[in-house]
Amino acid sequence: MGFFDSLSPRAVATSALLLTSFAQDVLARPSPDPKAPWVKNTGLGKKKMANHLKRAIMGDKRAVETPFCSETLATEIKAPKPNVWGPLVDVEVASVVEWLFAQADLNLTVSEEAGGWDNTIQLVEAMWPNKTDVLSFVDGDGPAPTKYAHVVLNNRATETPHYADIIVGPLPLDNATAKWEPLEYPYTKQNGGKVRNLDADSDRLYSEWLFKIGASVADITLDLWNGTAMGLENDTLSIWGIDPLWQDDGEIIRWDTFWNIPTGDFDDMTLFPLGLYFSSEVSGRDPSKWQLRGWLYNSIFYATTEEFRAAYWSEGFVKNGPNVDGDWARTDQNGEVPEMDKAQGPVIVAPAGARFAVDHKEKYVEWMDWSFYVGFNRDTGPGLFDIRYKGERLVYELSLQEALAHYAGNDPMNSGTAYLDSFYGFGPYTFELVKGYDCPAYATYMNTSFYVNEETRTHIDSLCLFEYVADYPMQRHTTSDYVSVTKNTYFVIRSIATIGNYDYQQSFSFFMDGSFAVEVRASGYIQSAYFAGNEDYGFKIHDNLSGSMHDHVLNFKADFDVLGTNNSIELMSMVPVSRSYPWSAGKVRNTMALERKFIETEDESRFNWGPNSATQVLIVNENEKNKHGELRGYRVLPYMGTAHLTVENSTNLGVAAQWANHDIQITKYKDSEQKAYHAFNTQDVHDPPVNFDKYFDGESVRNEDIVLWLNLGMHHVPHTGDLPNTVQTTAHSGIQFMPSNYFDIDQSRRTVNQVRINYFNGSAEVEEFGQFKAGSEEGTCGTCKLNYTPLEPEHQGYKGDVVIRKFPFDPNNPFYSTAGI
Amino acid sequence: MGFFDSLSPRAVATSALLLTSFAQDVLARPSPDPKAPWVKNTGLGKKKMANHLKRAIMGDKRAVETPFCSETLATEIKAPKPNVWGPLVDVEVASVVEWLFAQADLNLTVSEEAGGWDNTIQLVEAMWPNKTDVLSFVDGDGPAPTKYAHVVLNNRATETPHYADIIVGPLPLDNATAKWEPLEYPYTKQNGGKVRNLDADSDRLYSEWLFKIGASVADITLDLWNGTAMGLENDTLSIWGIDPLWQDDGEIIRWDTFWNIPTGDFDDMTLFPLGLYFSSEVSGRDPSKWQLRGWLYNSIFYATTEEFRAAYWSEGFVKNGPNVDGDWARTDQNGEVPEMDKAQGPVIVAPAGARFAVDHKEKYVEWMDWSFYVGFNRDTGPGLFDIRYKGERLVYELSLQEALAHYAGNDPMNSGTAYLDSFYGFGPYTFELVKGYDCPAYATYMNTSFYVNEETRTHIDSLCLFEYVADYPMQRHTTSDYVSVTKNTYFVIRSIATIGNYDYQQSFSFFMDGSFAVEVRASGYIQSAYFAGNEDYGFKIHDNLSGSMHDHVLNFKADFDVLGTNNSIELMSMVPVSRSYPWSAGKVRNTMALERKFIETEDESRFNWGPNSATQVLIVNENEKNKHGELRGYRVLPYMGTAHLTVENSTNLGVAAQWANHDIQITKYKDSEQKAYHAFNTQDVHDPPVNFDKYFDGESVRNEDIVLWLNLGMHHVPHTGDLPNTVQTTAHSGIQFMPSNYFDIDQSRRTVNQVRINYFNGSAEVEEFGQFKAGSEEGTCGTCKLNYTPLEPEHQGYKGDVVIRKFPFDPNNPFYSTAGI
Repeated sequence: MGFFDSLSPRAVATSALLLTSFAQDVLARPSPDPKAPWVKNTGLGKKKMANHLKRAIMGDKRAVETPFCSETLATEIKAPKPNVWGPLVDVEVASVVEWLFAQADLNLTVSEEAGGWDNTIQLVEAMWPNKTDVLSFVDGDGPAPTKYAHVVLNNRATETPHYADIIVGPLPLDNATAKWEPLEYPYTKQNGGKVRNLDADSDRLYSEWLFKIGASVADITLDLWNGTAMGLENDTLSIWGIDPLWQDDGEIIRWDTFWNIPTGDFDDMTLFPLGLYFSSEVSGRDPSKWQLRGWLYNSIFYATTEEFRAAYWSEGFVKNGPNVDGDWARTDQNGEVPEMDKAQGPVIVAPAGARFAVDHKEKYVEWMDWSFYVGFNRDTGPGLFDIRYKGERLVYELSLQEALAHYAGNDPMNSGTAYLDSFYGFGPYTFELVKGYDCPAYATYMNTSFYVNEETRTHIDSLCLFEYVADYPMQRHTTSDYVSVTKNTYFVIRSIATIGNYDYQQSFSFFMDGSFAVEVRASGYIQSAYFAGNEDYGFKIHDNLSGSMHDHVLNFKADFDVLGTNNSIELMSMVPVSRSYPWSAGKVRNTMALERKFIETEDESRFNWGPNSATQVLIVNENEKNKHGELRGYRVLPYMGTAHLTVENSTNLGVAAQWANHDIQITKYKDSEQKAYHAFNTQDVHDPPVNFDKYFDGESVRNEDIVLWLNLGMHHVPHTGDLPNTVQTTAHSGIQFMPSNYFDIDQSRRTVNQVRINYFNGSAEVEEFGQFKAGSEEGTCGTCKLNYTPLEPEHQGYKGDVVIRKFPFDPNNPFYSTAGI
Repeated sequence: MGFFDSLSPRAVATSALLLTSFAQDVLARPSPDPKAPWVKNTGLGKKKMANHLKRAIMGDKRAVETPFCSETLATEIKAPKPNVWGPLVDVEVASVVEWLFAQADLNLTVSEEAGGWDNTIQLVEAMWPNKTDVLSFVDGDGPAPTKYAHVVLNNRATETPHYADIIVGPLPLDNATAKWEPLEYPYTKQNGGKVRNLDADSDRLYSEWLFKIGASVADITLDLWNGTAMGLENDTLSIWGIDPLWQDDGEIIRWDTFWNIPTGDFDDMTLFPLGLYFSSEVSGRDPSKWQLRGWLYNSIFYATTEEFRAAYWSEGFVKNGPNVDGDWARTDQNGEVPEMDKAQGPVIVAPAGARFAVDHKEKYVEWMDWSFYVGFNRDTGPGLFDIRYKGERLVYELSLQEALAHYAGNDPMNSGTAYLDSFYGFGPYTFELVKGYDCPAYATYMNTSFYVNEETRTHIDSLCLFEYVADYPMQRHTTSDYVSVTKNTYFVIRSIATIGNYDYQQSFSFFMDGSFAVEVRASGYIQSAYFAGNEDYGFKIHDNLSGSMHDHVLNFKADFDVLGTNNSIELMSMVPVSRSYPWSAGKVRNTMALERKFIETEDESRFNWGPNSATQVLIVNENEKNKHGELRGYRVLPYMGTAHLTVENSTNLGVAAQWANHDIQITKYKDSEQKAYHAFNTQDVHDPPVNFDKYFDGESVRNEDIVLWLNLGMHHVPHTGDLPNTVQTTAHSGIQFMPSNYFDIDQSRRTVNQVRINYFNGSAEVEEFGQFKAGSEEGTCGTCKLNYTPLEPEHQGYKGDVVIRKFPFDPNNPFYSTAGI
């Protein structure tokens, strides 16, 4: 169904608007054509790939000095279809913004001029189309789904400030048809796409509340830490607090705490909590009516500032030390360099250049027999769509939904913190990658863009795509006569989003045997706690510092389409059994057997990985048996650890993150149940726009179009090894998807990158299957002068964001800036 | 305690023997010095390492054409102490063998002349010393532990054939002191080190039993499969069966089945079961008294051959098809080559050569701040000893104990199979590795040796050691102003043992942050089942083939010594709690907290990984707190999946593999409880030499020298993707060990292989910490002509085993052979 079809009749009736002539002017402009160097050329298509391969395979004898060795970027091809999950182009964004400002009833103010009581445009981006509208297009000759802009308005010109989800379209905007509508149908809360905004007065929160409170205890902060938090230039303290705010009993409660401001250039503030907390009731828009609700220090609660001050200055008051910046908190090289580390370490190179192809414009990728499109949005960053093997779709959508970081502690700051990171958005923080470090130096990169303050900002080189070769083979077998062994070369698309203190590395990997995987690794700074009575909630890891315990849970949507949309979930378990057999002479044998069951409905479709990894979760097509009568399918299995949320019925979260409570959850696909999250669920945790629980209403999930919602995650009790940053050796989680009776035999048999060696009494016969032979007549790479500078990817070229102003639209003057995201 | 000290007084008294003058002659010979090219030079020691590093770091301007880029092997150094877990040297083996043949009471026959009723020497290898004898040597100025040979005699000159474990020593043998003793004290069964041998008449099993039965049904096998199994040259069928044999009620029962012999050159017989089974009672040594106990075909049991034949030739008998060799079962390249696969893929290179050092003779390794010794034995292959970081021991021993492959099925062959692979031995099957496939082409290799038939056989290049760089960084953090990121370069020592059909890849990995890991991946041929009524036990994966379900469980001994031998196991769990706090205004909050408990005794020391990965298993030293008061320790955690045995009280296994029933088991270290397994446990499953259960007798494991017994494993229900071989993308299991408050901060901060980039408005400032700069004045590798031939490691040099005859001792005539292991 189309977007407007899915709106309630009342909503459609009340918002049928006409495109203004002002906006029509925008559309009449010729499409601008920015020529900045960071805009990728879309290349020469299939011909170029063919030429590249020809040179790589056959050798190019004319180019001995500068052969293909150095041509490392992916070949540009043309995607079979436009990417319907792609971004709006600049002119579309500009036209939508201009049109929105022309809608008087929206009462919008441009960001630069807006104050706390103005309505602004928070977001303009492409609305990902409904699957029901897409399938006939990507699978057949159907029309492309109509394009709409997803817009979020930050309506603050009211006593009840709120975010408003609307859609604008169809695109390109046309007077006869352009309109805006409240976006409501994908949410479980049916109130016209509005969510209250608890952050509406953030501009006055510091100036009229937190700094005043900081000033009111300056005598104490100076005595304790020789510093103040009053909004002054020379403040050495910062104040900030819980997220989400507490929303119980009709009140909005904050808890804030003091932090030492870093004294160096590092982002290490989250390591310097100071252990003094205060609570505020901040309902309503009038700071003069907000109430200080008390202080906490060293586990003692004081109802008023006066009470706290009196205690503080009285005899016997116990004062604890601060947490202070230093080399221990900074990520630069620190400590004695291991002698061997001073030499050049191993490095991976791609002598024949990239062996894959991309359409940069459509963000479409082909590697070996795999292909997929990349979508990108503000809330969750990149997602993969229409993942196919040999042209047959396996997955319609594989994308991050939400990342929860739930803390606990004996203090209200840590007890009260449960970040839902889509609120901040993965898109804006999907930073430029460091070549040779985050990805191999030879990787191919793509840009990503996001909207902020009437600008489109572009993170250059923020997605990387590369092949890698595992340190272990894909397959091998030795006998006393021969050995057969195959390389395990795989493909990765990676992005890294740094949401505040934490860096989430998200990688999708594809393998030659038909398996693929999604992995998350975490680094960056922990958010720590002050260590005073915190023993039950973390290790003491520095002077007065607790490695505050927390759960990371990251939900991924995996909308499998195994040989069509109608799929089922089969659970196949290995179970101990005691059985007798026709041949067991009447004896009962203790052995094991398989038990199989199908998940029938959403009443039984939320569960955890079974004990002892004994249960396989299989996505099968009951209508598609292989020639041996087995159901063709894919198996989903933990790769490198998973986790769901430890906390039960979290007081912080209400029903805002009900997706976090199980490892695996399955729903029937609906256009109205597209995402597990809403970016503003934190703003109304007891009545959020998306309550994931409501997706489970007893519908059949057998032989239906089903969606798996899978949790990756890590339980984290930071120890001294998390200082200064968490390391990615052990902070990892991943899920693999492997074929289960999907192909006739292992697909990696098709590679030539294998060898068989027959050996006998000290001599060997080698079969190489026509694989590329370095230095042979067929190839030149073995003899070319490889221009080998592994440690010199262009770090000087790290640039930050490119910004294009959308209102007024100024496409030919991109500039660099990373401020204000 | 010493070996003889730990023997019972009676055993010592009855076996005090004198060294014969014959053996003394052996000892009088000068030590031979084999010069074969496969014997590694022990190198130039520390000076060479220093020179290598100097060139690698500073550049060697004289050598532009052939610079250090190609010097890839590890620097040779001298181990701080001799490797007390090292092998016997040739002359020691020869002297022991000669001495043994001189002991008339042993009544030994040389292997080549031995028949089924002779006693032979099965094994001569170094006895790994008792930890109690080693510590004062490796940690201080104590003497080296006395060296003994571990010998296994295969005593078949008796109605009760048995293996006899003895030790011979002290070494070098000396007339005054040399003696042999039954080896009993490390085993739970106290019967003088003897284990019955159910395999004693294997030479007559075929000629006098199985082939005769095959001949008795030749009419049927010809009709069913156009083949015979009669011991003829033109047989196309093979017969073999269960392991271990059934040992109940005083009977020894075999079940055997027919297999098609491969028609090509591949080791794919385990894919061609034919579905006809027969049972034999084979007690005693007289084949004429063995009894055929019946036939099974298509789930119907026939008590006699006559009954089976009558049924077979009667009307309506249901005949099933065979499983037949073909390309589907062969590992060579098969299927359409993906176009991009024809070009050269990415490859890892080590431009500065190996950045680690080894003592090949002592099998001692140093990488960065890590060091360890490698031990090797017949039963389990390589093990690591005395693993240290910065000179401080973390682990005394980390070694494979046993690998179980437990099958199940509706037929007696699969139901009855539960391989305990130490019976076959990992050592003899730790084959030569394929350079550039099993390990990077630039890896450093070591040889390993094992004893068979009075020969020492050497697998050349069967251990590889290499550095690799992960496709993801160790650490990173981005802000709007800067990005900091560190490479994840790690070190691996790997071996691969192919026990029959399956290839077990065992890798120990070490990381710069102080973590390390053990991983197993499996490839090779599955052992399959005939598919007839097998639905409950596997997928149908080919014409008449079931991917027979099975569990792999591999036990590893991890004898941690965290800052000394007295350690404890702390379990720290994240648990949901509902609590009120001084600051929570009387409200109860749903949150989480840590629960800690110590394992006190062996009564509570066997358990599984907790649900939702919520429980950390910490090995701590309660006497060693860090400066913040936390216990210094290491955490053990699953890496890429683990498994324990599904089957409960396995009818096949009796009490022979009681280590397989839990994920984690902890014992107090004892010289008498050194191994979880005995290689001959399969020979007496109800009364095996080592019953692991008996290690758990209530002793304290708190603040004691403790040993962790950890299970890796995979539940495997082979599907079509396991054809022809299982792939290692998903067939993996691993455990990591990470520091927990062990260091003050992350140790990877010490590397120079990191970068910080400060960026602002499109320009960048790069801090590289003095790391090696390719092409700079300090280094030459960036400008050297890298002789880059990634696909040409010397596969022509794959050789197979080198054999040195020990009796008569002929050290100067090594020859190549892989026959007869």
